[in-house]
Amino acid sequence: MSLGIVFLSEVFGTAMLTLLGCGVVANVALKGTKGNNGGFLMVNWGWGIAVFAGVFVAAKSGAHLNPAVTLGLLIEGKRPYAAGVPIDFASTMTYFGAEMLGAFLGAVVCWAAYKPHFDAEPLAASKLAVFSTGPAIRSTPWNLVTEVIGTFVLVFVILAFGGTPSGLGPLAVALLVVGIGASLGGPTGYAINPARDLGPRIAHALLPIKGKGSSDWAYSWVPVVGPLVGGVVAGFAAKYLPIVFIAAA
Amino acid sequence: MSLGIVFLSEVFGTAMLTLLGCGVVANVALKGTKGNNGGFLMVNWGWGIAVFAGVFVAAKSGAHLNPAVTLGLLIEGKRPYAAGVPIDFASTMTYFGAEMLGAFLGAVVCWAAYKPHFDAEPLAASKLAVFSTGPAIRSTPWNLVTEVIGTFVLVFVILAFGGTPSGLGPLAVALLVVGIGASLGGPTGYAINPARDLGPRIAHALLPIKGKGSSDWAYSWVPVVGPLVGGVVAGFAAKYLPIVFIAAA
Amino acid sequence: MSLGIVFLSEVFGTAMLTLLGCGVVANVALKGTKGNNGGFLMVNWGWGIAVFAGVFVAAKSGAHLNPAVTLGLLIEGKRPYAAGVPIDFASTMTYFGAEMLGAFLGAVVCWAAYKPHFDAEPLAASKLAVFSTGPAIRSTPWNLVTEVIGTFVLVFVILAFGGTPSGLGPLAVALLVVGIGASLGGPTGYAINPARDLGPRIAHALLPIKGKGSSDWAYSWVPVVGPLVGGVVAGFAAKYLPIVFIAAA
Amino acid sequence: MSLGIVFLSEVFGTAMLTLLGCGVVANVALKGTKGNNGGFLMVNWGWGIAVFAGVFVAAKSGAHLNPAVTLGLLIEGKRPYAAGVPIDFASTMTYFGAEMLGAFLGAVVCWAAYKPHFDAEPLAASKLAVFSTGPAIRSTPWNLVTEVIGTFVLVFVILAFGGTPSGLGPLAVALLVVGIGASLGGPTGYAINPARDLGPRIAHALLPIKGKGSSDWAYSWVPVVGPLVGGVVAGFAAKYLPIVFIAAA
Repeated sequence: MSLGIVFLSEVFGTAMLTLLGCGVVANVALKGTKGNNGGFLMVNWGWGIAVFAGVFVAAKSGAHLNPAVTLGLLIEGKRPYAAGVPIDFASTMTYFGAEMLGAFLGAVVCWAAYKPHFDAEPLAASKLAVFSTGPAIRSTPWNLVTEVIGTFVLVFVILAFGGTPSGLGPLAVALLVVGIGASLGGPTGYAINPARDLGPRIAHALLPIKGKGSSDWAYSWVPVVGPLVGGVVAGFAAKYLPIVFIAAA
Repeated sequence: MSLGIVFLSEVFGTAMLTLLGCGVVANVALKGTKGNNGGFLMVNWGWGIAVFAGVFVAAKSGAHLNPAVTLGLLIEGKRPYAAGVPIDFASTMTYFGAEMLGAFLGAVVCWAAYKPHFDAEPLAASKLAVFSTGPAIRSTPWNLVTEVIGTFVLVFVILAFGGTPSGLGPLAVALLVVGIGASLGGPTGYAINPARDLGPRIAHALLPIKGKGSSDWAYSWVPVVGPLVGGVVAGFAAKYLPIVFIAAA
Repeated sequence: MSLGIVFLSEVFGTAMLTLLGCGVVANVALKGTKGNNGGFLMVNWGWGIAVFAGVFVAAKSGAHLNPAVTLGLLIEGKRPYAAGVPIDFASTMTYFGAEMLGAFLGAVVCWAAYKPHFDAEPLAASKLAVFSTGPAIRSTPWNLVTEVIGTFVLVFVILAFGGTPSGLGPLAVALLVVGIGASLGGPTGYAINPARDLGPRIAHALLPIKGKGSSDWAYSWVPVVGPLVGGVVAGFAAKYLPIVFIAAA
Repeated sequence: MSLGIVFLSEVFGTAMLTLLGCGVVANVALKGTKGNNGGFLMVNWGWGIAVFAGVFVAAKSGAHLNPAVTLGLLIEGKRPYAAGVPIDFASTMTYFGAEMLGAFLGAVVCWAAYKPHFDAEPLAASKLAVFSTGPAIRSTPWNLVTEVIGTFVLVFVILAFGGTPSGLGPLAVALLVVGIGASLGGPTGYAINPARDLGPRIAHALLPIKGKGSSDWAYSWVPVVGPLVGGVVAGFAAKYLPIVFIAAA
């Protein structure tokens, strides 16, 4: 498959991910919406199904949608990125770039979908929360720890899916994301994906959002570095632990 | 398959859709019900499973249940409407008519199921909300934008299902509707289906509902035009973008 | 298969259904539980998964678990009750008896599981609600209408499952019950199963529940007659409408 | 398969279970998290998906993750513990030891993920609740009854899965755990797994948690003995009741 197709596929899939994912936060957080104060479980389902939809859209390119997943596959090194897409420098950069661009574009479309509610919302913090994660209690080392753990769970279990016949397809990763959000999303809001956090943060910085306040660049590296470390650790675990792949038993 | 069967199938399926879909809004919004104030996530699950049930009932005719889906398939033009139902003017009109009639009938049955609660509810706005959508913040252009985006996601991902083997069948579209509701339902209540909104609105206008107030015809064209535009855009995207169909890779 | 096996299978399956189903109401309604005021959506999921578990337990006998389902299959008349169980008077009576006994026994076990909370709960109405349904607004004709509609949806869509390959198995009916609860459970608490309501009501009458109050026998025929009528109508619809069975197309 | 692989597989799978399971309680119970007061249904989904993820990780060893499941399989005696793992004393001890160690380790990692929130939480009881279950109303005999019933449902239905083709794989047990939590979790918080309760309780006793208070050892035997009894009863029921295994019909 040409890298152009991979690029387009990941851009669309990741845009679908952040459109629906940022959308559920907008619905819960912004003033006057119908889902206002809908609860954290609704946020978890929104992000889970955001991944579900993104996986269908980007099925052709393997639906990474996340640099941490791409990195985990790279380090594990047991299979191509997708059917007909070998692991090499050019394909890796294609995935990274497409994931970032898609995440940015999805957040822009989400802003359009909620435009009157961004205008009505008085709190700048609530507006930023639609785009990017922030810690509940700011503590750089522990926030990093939480993001590493959450992303390790995501990438490690995704890599384990490959060895377990389940017939669930994209539903498996959707449920996994619901669960990671419910269980490990409390302290940092579960970025668990550098593109999902950085792409929308750039959108927040560039868009003419009324009364938008800071994009909190001081925190921005945590939801990038934490997930990348978590993806790397998961890749090594899947490579060297003999438990993950049933097929390799 | 005869168009009579297609008509009957879509009438029953779309009636099942609005019976259960309008029902969950009645349960959350009308006075004295057991699910009063059950939250937006409950509404999302109610509509998602409403689609799920409708898809089983109308499986024979391909379970469009939605003129925007019919339109998306028409424009994409890559497959028949259902097994044995070619795309032509007569079949298209059959789907449109059946979807409208079914949506109307389902809303009538829903009203019967909740009759004592319609009588007990003092607010006319809550009664209309059972039947049809309305904007959280009234802004015609932005409300249109939201409906276009929501319906694009619905139809585009449904068209992408065709290229992704998942074994989930009707569950896939059910989850997609849960997610669109949670993520993009905040500003307009996610009609994302002209029949789902207009059919019940006509029912609202015709039924002898106690203290029912206006049917809000001024807004009624938005949840018709927005979804139709979203379906058309999704159809073109599926036709010309090379990412959607794995099988066509 | 011998009718003794059918009997045992349906007793165990229906007991599993009312143990988990009555259990979730106990968790939400009784004083001092961990799920107190957990919301109506939690009740819907509890009953949905109660059916899910019951279907696995009673798979051998076709997992009717509900006289309205047995009646629907009887009237439709297109397939045996289960593999090796023809439709005749003796098998029908076996299903009816087993469903009633199982529903009774499951409610007894549920009472044991929540014993200290039954003792702590001051309201008799909350105790009865664990066992049996009651109307939100008492109106015999409309309460009957609601139960007829809800059970029609249940049995009609279950009969439609047979014609739609989905691979979801017991999950399909579980989701259907979640949806019927969310969408049509508001007025009467969705008995949609005569055994599920009458069996536990008899348990309520017989068990030495502290301060239990009336078993509300005046209402008790509504959640029996309504579901039976709904099952009959669904059976006729599935028999004569040409849309339900794809295989018969 | 070597017992070393079995051990490693169950350690990782059970650690995944308690990391995500204890995590959702931390998110709901500890001060300042984003999921604070997220509701009991969110806790149920968190534990359900915790099992889901653990089953994928430990698929190679049959994913017991629970001494009560191991015991149920031992007593039923109709199949090996996993492909290539016969039931004998050494394998049984390997499962028990790995489940305990894994449950302990997952709780330790969960503590790290929520470290700032453990520090901020003033109530010692909320901290213990993250690790281990406690009764809503303390009554040793009835608390035991509840745990026996809940675990019987878990193990009996899991054993019944084997006889019912459903294609749901790990999703079936995930939903079952969601349902047991919603329906039978009200009185005791549903340990239904001795390792899930005792492993994290030991972690609570050993970890330097700020202001942690008692580990409530007086209650600790109830969520061990109750689940073991429930697993034994389920094993005997599956062994002698002729309804459970369709394949054996």
